[in-house]
Amino acid sequence: MNGQFISFEGPDGAGKTTVLKEMVAYFEKEISGELVVTREPGGNPISEAIRKLILDPQNTMMDRRTEALLYAAARRQHLVEKVIPALQRNAVVFCDRYVDSSVAYQGAGREIGTDDVYKMNLFATEGILPNLTIYLDVPSEVGLKRIMNHRKNEINRLDLEKLDFHKRVREAYLALARQYPDRIKVINANQEEKVVQHDVRILLEEQLHSRLRG
Amino acid sequence: MNGQFISFEGPDGAGKTTVLKEMVAYFEKEISGELVVTREPGGNPISEAIRKLILDPQNTMMDRRTEALLYAAARRQHLVEKVIPALQRNAVVFCDRYVDSSVAYQGAGREIGTDDVYKMNLFATEGILPNLTIYLDVPSEVGLKRIMNHRKNEINRLDLEKLDFHKRVREAYLALARQYPDRIKVINANQEEKVVQHDVRILLEEQLHSRLRG
Repeated sequence: MNGQFISFEGPDGAGKTTVLKEMVAYFEKEISGELVVTREPGGNPISEAIRKLILDPQNTMMDRRTEALLYAAARRQHLVEKVIPALQRNAVVFCDRYVDSSVAYQGAGREIGTDDVYKMNLFATEGILPNLTIYLDVPSEVGLKRIMNHRKNEINRLDLEKLDFHKRVREAYLALARQYPDRIKVINANQEEKVVQHDVRILLEEQLHSRLRG
Repeated sequence: MNGQFISFEGPDGAGKTTVLKEMVAYFEKEISGELVVTREPGGNPISEAIRKLILDPQNTMMDRRTEALLYAAARRQHLVEKVIPALQRNAVVFCDRYVDSSVAYQGAGREIGTDDVYKMNLFATEGILPNLTIYLDVPSEVGLKRIMNHRKNEINRLDLEKLDFHKRVREAYLALARQYPDRIKVINANQEEKVVQHDVRILLEEQLHSRLRG
């Protein structure tokens, strides 16, 4: 596999969607060869069916480990059907969330345990990890405020619970970045949008150096 | 959890279904308290939906690790909804297949790797394993002949492939039994039905000693 596998990570409210969109617009012109942009479940029937099962509001009894295993199963199938073939075609793959999201959200957010969730996901991915992971970091209060900006700034009890959850998620991301510094690069996303985009672009240009046009 | 969790394992053609039926008939009279007989997916909506997804003939592209993760997810939900509550009620639980089946069939039969499948299943079960596992052992040729006894004894190319698969499954079961001798007891199932039943009954009487009536 000669492709480049790059994942984008961050808590809700980090601005990941916007940054990813901008990077796709920029790099699809700048690189030679194929750029594949994807996210799980990614359109294959098996992963889509699994996701449907996870999100089915009827399944209120779903255990958090059952959920983590189902996310990993959907990830596996997406990897096998979409990511690996693209990497074999020598493509650049931008993937919106991957293993680290499960470690942060299921492992830390839902308190299953980050190590256990990471190891289980290595079973799912057969150890296939991104060449580069861009983690957009924001303080939890900022991220939460951003996703609640349709409301005023009053914070209620449920929001405080959410804040705890978000803090656990962020701590897990930062711990992963410390544990895998070669793979995971932290971007301060608590800056102006243009500055964040600039910082991400620099990282990607370094990683995709050999593929940039003239 | 004060209950007794007992799993029944064996390759196809070992006579597991018959033995289990006989043991249920015998012990539901002999023990005081509740006897729960179950097998995955076990009737809860989430595990049943997962099983349906695995067996859907449309899903021909399903990767073997995706399949193993889905089996583990169905196992987790069955464990949480049925087995653990029964053990908390102090019941005796007879479970037709559990973790060892995945190790033997997915790990060895489908060649994912027995250690990887075992560890992934420990994530699913949170380490909850049977107090006793009864493994019914038959030579692969005998097991295969038993499940093909509607045909004459001619063996074709596909049967030989099946034989290889069955041999890997059996070897994995025997390796598990050597690795976990306190939990897994091997019964020679290549004997007359009455003898096999007698041997299994003795093991169960030992394990359920404190629960036998007068």
